[in-house]
Amino acid sequence: MTTRRFAPEIFHNVLGALEPVARFANGERVIVETVDAWGFDKSGVRRQTPPNPMSGPFYIEDAEPGDTLAVRIEAMTANRDEGWTFGPAATNVVDPAYAASLPKRERVLWRLDREAGTARLIDPPAALARFEVAFAPMLGCFGVAPPLGQAISTATSGAYGGNMDYRRFGPGTTAYFPVFAPGALLFLGDGHFCQGDGEIVGTGIETSFEVELTVTVQKGRKIGWPRGETRDCLFTLGNARPLDQALQHATTEMIAWLGQEFGLDPLAASHLLGQTVRYDVANVFNPAYSVACRLHKSVLAALA
Amino acid sequence: MTTRRFAPEIFHNVLGALEPVARFANGERVIVETVDAWGFDKSGVRRQTPPNPMSGPFYIEDAEPGDTLAVRIEAMTANRDEGWTFGPAATNVVDPAYAASLPKRERVLWRLDREAGTARLIDPPAALARFEVAFAPMLGCFGVAPPLGQAISTATSGAYGGNMDYRRFGPGTTAYFPVFAPGALLFLGDGHFCQGDGEIVGTGIETSFEVELTVTVQKGRKIGWPRGETRDCLFTLGNARPLDQALQHATTEMIAWLGQEFGLDPLAASHLLGQTVRYDVANVFNPAYSVACRLHKSVLAALA
Amino acid sequence: MTTRRFAPEIFHNVLGALEPVARFANGERVIVETVDAWGFDKSGVRRQTPPNPMSGPFYIEDAEPGDTLAVRIEAMTANRDEGWTFGPAATNVVDPAYAASLPKRERVLWRLDREAGTARLIDPPAALARFEVAFAPMLGCFGVAPPLGQAISTATSGAYGGNMDYRRFGPGTTAYFPVFAPGALLFLGDGHFCQGDGEIVGTGIETSFEVELTVTVQKGRKIGWPRGETRDCLFTLGNARPLDQALQHATTEMIAWLGQEFGLDPLAASHLLGQTVRYDVANVFNPAYSVACRLHKSVLAALA
Amino acid sequence: MTTRRFAPEIFHNVLGALEPVARFANGERVIVETVDAWGFDKSGVRRQTPPNPMSGPFYIEDAEPGDTLAVRIEAMTANRDEGWTFGPAATNVVDPAYAASLPKRERVLWRLDREAGTARLIDPPAALARFEVAFAPMLGCFGVAPPLGQAISTATSGAYGGNMDYRRFGPGTTAYFPVFAPGALLFLGDGHFCQGDGEIVGTGIETSFEVELTVTVQKGRKIGWPRGETRDCLFTLGNARPLDQALQHATTEMIAWLGQEFGLDPLAASHLLGQTVRYDVANVFNPAYSVACRLHKSVLAALA
Repeated sequence: MTTRRFAPEIFHNVLGALEPVARFANGERVIVETVDAWGFDKSGVRRQTPPNPMSGPFYIEDAEPGDTLAVRIEAMTANRDEGWTFGPAATNVVDPAYAASLPKRERVLWRLDREAGTARLIDPPAALARFEVAFAPMLGCFGVAPPLGQAISTATSGAYGGNMDYRRFGPGTTAYFPVFAPGALLFLGDGHFCQGDGEIVGTGIETSFEVELTVTVQKGRKIGWPRGETRDCLFTLGNARPLDQALQHATTEMIAWLGQEFGLDPLAASHLLGQTVRYDVANVFNPAYSVACRLHKSVLAALA
Repeated sequence: MTTRRFAPEIFHNVLGALEPVARFANGERVIVETVDAWGFDKSGVRRQTPPNPMSGPFYIEDAEPGDTLAVRIEAMTANRDEGWTFGPAATNVVDPAYAASLPKRERVLWRLDREAGTARLIDPPAALARFEVAFAPMLGCFGVAPPLGQAISTATSGAYGGNMDYRRFGPGTTAYFPVFAPGALLFLGDGHFCQGDGEIVGTGIETSFEVELTVTVQKGRKIGWPRGETRDCLFTLGNARPLDQALQHATTEMIAWLGQEFGLDPLAASHLLGQTVRYDVANVFNPAYSVACRLHKSVLAALA
Repeated sequence: MTTRRFAPEIFHNVLGALEPVARFANGERVIVETVDAWGFDKSGVRRQTPPNPMSGPFYIEDAEPGDTLAVRIEAMTANRDEGWTFGPAATNVVDPAYAASLPKRERVLWRLDREAGTARLIDPPAALARFEVAFAPMLGCFGVAPPLGQAISTATSGAYGGNMDYRRFGPGTTAYFPVFAPGALLFLGDGHFCQGDGEIVGTGIETSFEVELTVTVQKGRKIGWPRGETRDCLFTLGNARPLDQALQHATTEMIAWLGQEFGLDPLAASHLLGQTVRYDVANVFNPAYSVACRLHKSVLAALA
Repeated sequence: MTTRRFAPEIFHNVLGALEPVARFANGERVIVETVDAWGFDKSGVRRQTPPNPMSGPFYIEDAEPGDTLAVRIEAMTANRDEGWTFGPAATNVVDPAYAASLPKRERVLWRLDREAGTARLIDPPAALARFEVAFAPMLGCFGVAPPLGQAISTATSGAYGGNMDYRRFGPGTTAYFPVFAPGALLFLGDGHFCQGDGEIVGTGIETSFEVELTVTVQKGRKIGWPRGETRDCLFTLGNARPLDQALQHATTEMIAWLGQEFGLDPLAASHLLGQTVRYDVANVFNPAYSVACRLHKSVLAALA
């Protein structure tokens, strides 16, 4: 059977209970085209205005409120040769008194070598003439329709996912979202060729993609915040400001996960995490910051 | 020449301009004994009350205000068979409404197998019967006398270092501190057998150590916040609350470093960091939180 | 002409671009009935589930994106004899380590004496047997449809208004909202018989109301955040977490206002505010906190 | 008996366990001269460098750790004709992206009319030609020696007091500080002719003063944070970043106070505060921000 391919006609600036543009079977593997954060597609044609135009929503059969939607990112293929970023660092990631001395914010272009899997600034400052970064693709913004019939800007994020800009949301990772609406209503877009922690310039290297996904409904699995699984790690995502609160959400969700699925009560979970936990600052730029609480699977495997 | 060994008679609960207990030559390699965070030494004898009793201060010859003190951690040898931690997770690292459901805070003991380089809970909950963690030693609290003749509790941290609880401050790492007082006045202690990110239970595995150090004065090198260097990475430390501000300090200091020593102006530094930076949440427990802004040296090496 | 009276049939849990339930003329004075934060109406009948069911949306003739909607609260009449609050103080307004010692959260009832203009706990603890508070009504949640076609929960707030819980949004105050959608789409509800600063128990004294309003479109007046005007003061509202960011939004908006309408450049505005500004912590409970930056009109009057 | 007058020879930039410059009897009323935040005295002579040079420390007879020191501010007399402020608003009180557009920070002078009780900019921008502010004096920085033998910069604050910059610390107010060292060791200075909430330009109108005080030891009264009492109100001060944490400290301390001295358990205290509490943003500029939790005495009086 061929993998279905979906190239959207319209793109949305919110995650919400909008009319589905397609229906995917529970367990189906699909390919979805995405435009970049400003709405430019693989041909460089602008298809929608910012912020972060989304492909979707996709109605996932069998998904009902109270379930969890598993979205495995099978592959991400950049489908044009140019990306862009902003510079300098955002005013909110440096000392306030220093921010005033930063140069004006500007957009710069990167040449994407898709064969070699590298990106280079097209017109670099001299000091960066040899600077190149490796292809490490990720979805900046994806998630499901939020609760209460809300429709929320793709600039921000919450328990339903959204603009988390976490660099581990790339190929090989399975993301888990709580389902709030019938069919879950999956949205995705804002692909990055690569990105550092925190998205401190306000962007990864923004470009358009073909994203291959497998979507699976986990009936009756209740989660509170986005979770994820890489080959090596489990993680939870908290989305809020300040970072402190994002970290609190993520940590609470990880303790819940260890209790629900690994038999660790909060005290045991604390002893475990206290000596082994890792935190990632996913984004420290968007209206809601994102922090991941991450645990190596080997730690859990060794308990058995 | 034998490495000098220093076993303190007294221990301090502040970093400040106190009477030096010894003088080290610029470039000298020394061994210093440290007690644990509650003041227990290698024999289990309490030598001082909390918080984090320090060995020192050590007067470093040639160090004057405006210089930088480089402290290379050559080795850390745990010198007793028992450590301790707290549990559960601290109330400030979980959602406020969830915190009330946590069990009471208690101190638990770990058996340290110094041969094998592992630690295990002495009386583990059943689910953690097989849980063990590897030896990954670090200094929780170290630094120099702060400016203005201040003397500041070892519970907290600042531009002078202090209780940063960063797990990368272990053997092989060189820490850099701004010098504010003649002789710099180095303090150290609060060794951890290991520790997760954030020190979320309020402790690493606390025990006593022999710490081997090389101290070197970098004349006229001006830095604003603690910096460090591992085999693979450079990093800067920001100490403040909330995490947002700690991250701002660390990022600003890293941009300064890239300008001063690597020829990158703020815009070039931003392009570089934007796609390659890593942040570590060193501690999210102490009065001042600590965030590291970290960069792989390979990124800089590839520029040349 | 009689003031039009509007008693809604349906109530919404979001502010968004929903179907208007009525149209008001530019400059019209109207009376709107509101239910309480849990949806109970004047007869104690539950009309909608939480959070904060809204009356509206009301389409205001002439209002277009880029305008400002002025909503003068002419009067608020509590229309039943009972209100309710929660206790104890929310876990996020006390020290995290202290929060665990608070008693369980519970809902308590108040007898509203509408003649006397006082409220008393129906079943007070002994120490509060004589405790009564004066009628000082306010709208906890009101505002307009947010930008981008968003629909956002009435639990939170933003530039469009929403759940700000500011005690100065009572009779005699004019609120100003930026218009993002045709007709502005005014929503209102969540009336409080009274409320302390910060809404620290998570509620004011919640009850149902008749609210008398005059709605006026200010063509071409561009504002960035909700503003307001009492008999004596001007104020701006910032809505965000942490309080620091809410205060930043409010202060920036006040400096903008002083520039746009009072001829003060940012330096002059700073000299003025530095010695005369007042800040109010409107709410420190909701997902977005609210801070008002407030200035006595007499300060401005004396400049002329 | 004449009130003793104390004109210091030396001034300190820390609060700590320094050598007392005078001893005051328990209950004594004294007059102390203070220099301004940059160390300029009544004659315009610089007596010490910043930050906030303190008069003191004063040893108060009978004060021992565990007691409370009551400092009643009887009167504050500005003793020169000039004051100064900074402008524009600090970068940390406006939106980060807006901060870059502010003009450069500069110091400006004010003419103090001590007869009339007013201050005016000496060289005002045209728009402020008629701007004057009324004399509302306050102590920006005062407190006692902190615990653990610490000596902490007068730029910041903590449980021991320090640079709180709260405009209600003026004549008629009694401040209460926890005593950590024998004799309490009172420091004071940084007087302001007046100041807005938040000290958002980084200063009040800074000038030198004669401060008349009565110091009284409250044996065995244990408090956790600075408290205060005006003619009409009780308040508690929390000092920390972000504002959220400062507010948590202040609220927790107020609940403790209501329990210790007014017989209200935490639930009753919450019902009371929920509808009546006021918060003041004392300072949002210093390394530690300060928030006051304030309650009208009339609320408590009506309970009896």
